[in-house]
Amino acid sequence: MYWKKQGNRHGAIGPFVVRESMVLGHEASGVVQEVGREVKDLRAGDRVCMEPGIPDPEGRATRLGMYNLDPSVRFWATPPVHGILRPSVVHPSDFTYKLPGNVSLAEGALVEPLAIGVHAATRARVKPGDVAVVTGAGTIGMVTTIAALSAGCAEVIITDVKQPKLKLASTFGSVRPVDVGREDAVEVVKQMTGGWGADIVFEASGSEKAAAGIFELLCPGGRVVYIGMPAGGTVPIDIVAAQAKEARIDTIFRYAHVYPKALRLMGSGKIDVKPMITDTYPFRKGIEAFDYACDPKPTSVKVQIQLP
Amino acid sequence: MYWKKQGNRHGAIGPFVVRESMVLGHEASGVVQEVGREVKDLRAGDRVCMEPGIPDPEGRATRLGMYNLDPSVRFWATPPVHGILRPSVVHPSDFTYKLPGNVSLAEGALVEPLAIGVHAATRARVKPGDVAVVTGAGTIGMVTTIAALSAGCAEVIITDVKQPKLKLASTFGSVRPVDVGREDAVEVVKQMTGGWGADIVFEASGSEKAAAGIFELLCPGGRVVYIGMPAGGTVPIDIVAAQAKEARIDTIFRYAHVYPKALRLMGSGKIDVKPMITDTYPFRKGIEAFDYACDPKPTSVKVQIQLP
Amino acid sequence: MYWKKQGNRHGAIGPFVVRESMVLGHEASGVVQEVGREVKDLRAGDRVCMEPGIPDPEGRATRLGMYNLDPSVRFWATPPVHGILRPSVVHPSDFTYKLPGNVSLAEGALVEPLAIGVHAATRARVKPGDVAVVTGAGTIGMVTTIAALSAGCAEVIITDVKQPKLKLASTFGSVRPVDVGREDAVEVVKQMTGGWGADIVFEASGSEKAAAGIFELLCPGGRVVYIGMPAGGTVPIDIVAAQAKEARIDTIFRYAHVYPKALRLMGSGKIDVKPMITDTYPFRKGIEAFDYACDPKPTSVKVQIQLP
Amino acid sequence: MYWKKQGNRHGAIGPFVVRESMVLGHEASGVVQEVGREVKDLRAGDRVCMEPGIPDPEGRATRLGMYNLDPSVRFWATPPVHGILRPSVVHPSDFTYKLPGNVSLAEGALVEPLAIGVHAATRARVKPGDVAVVTGAGTIGMVTTIAALSAGCAEVIITDVKQPKLKLASTFGSVRPVDVGREDAVEVVKQMTGGWGADIVFEASGSEKAAAGIFELLCPGGRVVYIGMPAGGTVPIDIVAAQAKEARIDTIFRYAHVYPKALRLMGSGKIDVKPMITDTYPFRKGIEAFDYACDPKPTSVKVQIQLP
Repeated sequence: MYWKKQGNRHGAIGPFVVRESMVLGHEASGVVQEVGREVKDLRAGDRVCMEPGIPDPEGRATRLGMYNLDPSVRFWATPPVHGILRPSVVHPSDFTYKLPGNVSLAEGALVEPLAIGVHAATRARVKPGDVAVVTGAGTIGMVTTIAALSAGCAEVIITDVKQPKLKLASTFGSVRPVDVGREDAVEVVKQMTGGWGADIVFEASGSEKAAAGIFELLCPGGRVVYIGMPAGGTVPIDIVAAQAKEARIDTIFRYAHVYPKALRLMGSGKIDVKPMITDTYPFRKGIEAFDYACDPKPTSVKVQIQLP
Repeated sequence: MYWKKQGNRHGAIGPFVVRESMVLGHEASGVVQEVGREVKDLRAGDRVCMEPGIPDPEGRATRLGMYNLDPSVRFWATPPVHGILRPSVVHPSDFTYKLPGNVSLAEGALVEPLAIGVHAATRARVKPGDVAVVTGAGTIGMVTTIAALSAGCAEVIITDVKQPKLKLASTFGSVRPVDVGREDAVEVVKQMTGGWGADIVFEASGSEKAAAGIFELLCPGGRVVYIGMPAGGTVPIDIVAAQAKEARIDTIFRYAHVYPKALRLMGSGKIDVKPMITDTYPFRKGIEAFDYACDPKPTSVKVQIQLP
Repeated sequence: MYWKKQGNRHGAIGPFVVRESMVLGHEASGVVQEVGREVKDLRAGDRVCMEPGIPDPEGRATRLGMYNLDPSVRFWATPPVHGILRPSVVHPSDFTYKLPGNVSLAEGALVEPLAIGVHAATRARVKPGDVAVVTGAGTIGMVTTIAALSAGCAEVIITDVKQPKLKLASTFGSVRPVDVGREDAVEVVKQMTGGWGADIVFEASGSEKAAAGIFELLCPGGRVVYIGMPAGGTVPIDIVAAQAKEARIDTIFRYAHVYPKALRLMGSGKIDVKPMITDTYPFRKGIEAFDYACDPKPTSVKVQIQLP
Repeated sequence: MYWKKQGNRHGAIGPFVVRESMVLGHEASGVVQEVGREVKDLRAGDRVCMEPGIPDPEGRATRLGMYNLDPSVRFWATPPVHGILRPSVVHPSDFTYKLPGNVSLAEGALVEPLAIGVHAATRARVKPGDVAVVTGAGTIGMVTTIAALSAGCAEVIITDVKQPKLKLASTFGSVRPVDVGREDAVEVVKQMTGGWGADIVFEASGSEKAAAGIFELLCPGGRVVYIGMPAGGTVPIDIVAAQAKEARIDTIFRYAHVYPKALRLMGSGKIDVKPMITDTYPFRKGIEAFDYACDPKPTSVKVQIQLP
């Protein structure tokens, strides 16, 4: 079983704060050991990945199709629910998905972050031929870039200050990396769009600074998707600049109904996440993996732990 | 000819700053004096209102259906274009609209602010039976309330600190006024929606304070429309709170293709703006009207100047 | 307990055919007798109405927010599920809704057909100020007219060949009745819209004839909603005429998540269904009610049976 | 200058019928010879393609962003406007587009049919990971397949009775060809989607027969786009089958605002139309080209005429 860690030393993401000992891990794949009597679509031996959140089918948001927003979702490694860095887990079959033949277990563990990118691209209502900017070339920026291209964007401009991440991102397809320490992203966008602006900006950095000039990047009637969660929660937004372009700002939280879509894109070869798997540790070196992930090589993206 | 003033002493709205002498006025109705040879739909004597902005038909945003976002729009009383507080004006027939028989010239001059409310309600994609909150009971809050009700909202909760404005707004239909100095709007919304939250929040105050807790008012998957222009442009937004509900934030700038819709709603009797016309001055007392509008009675909403 | 019958002698609606003895009735209201231990929102004595369909929360369509499309929905009076023309029924609290104080039990039984109209208006994405045509002034045409007006339509043009129905419908607000035996609906629409066409056409007749010229009524970019179920299922559609206007055709089946919205519209006074309740029979005269409904007075709309 | 012909012997497409001598041709690319004084974005020598329709900027549909629906559009080779099979043409710069460096003149002439596919995919609101069916493997079916894949579809199932066309289409990416003479498309779709159905069906055959069972292919809540124009205009549609899935049916007519998007997709390498160019004739053999196109090889898709 594979597992992937978040490079977060602080034990909190947004309002969810770790206060007690907890099994970590929410990006998982593995092999089915046993299935319940009523399970029809899975059998022992199937290679699968799992959604880390189990919704309450009776929840109001769930019924409306938004199970990710239901407060009663039980989500791995989000207090008080334990995570998946363990040999086995009992999981509902409806949230367990067979991997296509061409998708490895290592790639299967990446469906989780990829689903965030695919959800963002879905919410953005990408039109074929759109130009998008992705701010931030971390894991989320990368999966968003991949998803945006698969969703119809003709070109993605990705911004960061870290050259190695930008270099990797630029291998994903029609991607223009912008090192914002050296280049002005607004100028690049203007040049590439004849002064019009990008159709979509995906904010994937969570950085207040990156978000500051976000509407200058945008075309009239453009859309912004806030994926990154700013550390402090609140950031200054230039409402008047947004209004001058009638920007529509979507915000997303995890994903809903996206795993089957993401797996289909991987199965059909439209999405390849392999370049993002840069480091793999065996389970017995798990502590080492965490230490490494806190201070990784600049070329490192996803650090995976392989269970025995 | 009627005309209506904005209570703004500072000579600026967002990035548009008055630096030279300028004729004011952008909310206008009147009677057609003469029409050009190719004009078919209008004739001398027709009672009309006019859109204050004349788009460039060749502009890229105009072509895409968003003429309000075209930088080359020429908009009355927005520097350097003079406004309409004058006896006559030459105006394109395509942006001049006949008033329905039941709509007076005084009401016709209110189509302009009403169009902002109708545009906001259109962009919000109101579903029939939605519950909306409108923050701010100024002119824009009032037209938004009226428009939201006409657009399908079953109930509107309007917030302000001014009792007389709230009192007037509560006569518009199924409106629950909330004096935020005495009541907690979040509690009112929770109580009215069984804890679920409002489907839509229209931010019509431009106030940083009103916008602060905006996502607490909202239901999962809800929508926010920023209509008010914050004085400083930039306001702090709690992105993480928005994300927890996957809020969609629309921003609007004036309106496009809305006048015919607004007039139809007035003509059919679904919208009545008469209660908003609280003060009328003859043109020769125009200065007095401006002075009054800077320090109006608490019950005053729209101050109109009637041309000879 | 109230109940309302469908005037259908043939024992079938679309693919659902009655082949065995069955309790009829799917439009119901009543008073709660007893609640289960975990029910929090209802108590004995509450006046309520109920959705006739109980979805399977684990169904795939249900999860996506479309429980009406789930084949495992159990729907009253749709074979093999018995209907509601009986003294009591056990029903899930999640699909049982308290009536607002101003809504009578008789009106509560009309939420079911109203929900179809509200669902149609929701799917149509009515914009405030739209002009709609409703073809057919039967029950469904009437609830659609009411719903369309509440959803933002400034005007509804309703067509039929039956004068008494048209007369009643014209009392619902800004409604223009068109007796298609005497007037040409296309001409009326052209005249009312300056030649542009209606924004929306709601097909509520199920009649092949009414549907024949449907796109002539429509404006460029307009929408059609097929609510009526044609007896034979299949009708000829002029695809090229639709394409010339890039018509979008929505089809609906019952409703989902609409009851709370419909009740809120009734509670706020925006929707009044009382004029549609034209005939009431006590339960002991139930057979008589059915006989009457097969050959009603021309002014008859809804025939209700009142349970003891 | 390149030019491509439609294989239509009858001189009519939908309501547009050729009654007099007319220059044919509406799919064109070429080299700019001269530009007007106010043209800024183009210069002599630029390789370009042109939109065949010139909208009236003052038309109502044009203003709303739908210039394709404006009756006053002047469209090449649509009576009474002559087409482009001639050495030169005066054309507005706003509807003349520079070809990206990697796009040949031959490919540039294919932007026109491609734009139809991109428009269809845009209207369909493809979500990333969707499964689509395209009925018909003619030119329009092929460009739709290409566009649907570029727009986010993970897989396209294309149906036809002609093996050579299906074979070519299956080289466009993740495409499953279905020879409906030998296989049941409904069964293929069910198998590929676990019984759920396709998210989208693009009707690109114009054939009544292909359209007959269209809703059986579809998933609940799915979308159908009618691209093909049935010869007789009207076809039988199974409304009740559509309703059971709440199918949304979009119809399209040409395209609007799509050329820049299509060119960007070609420029970025996401779309390659070269395999569709199967036959090229010099201008002096133009008649021969037309004769051939009326009775082409089974492997023939687009027959181009190259001007001197």
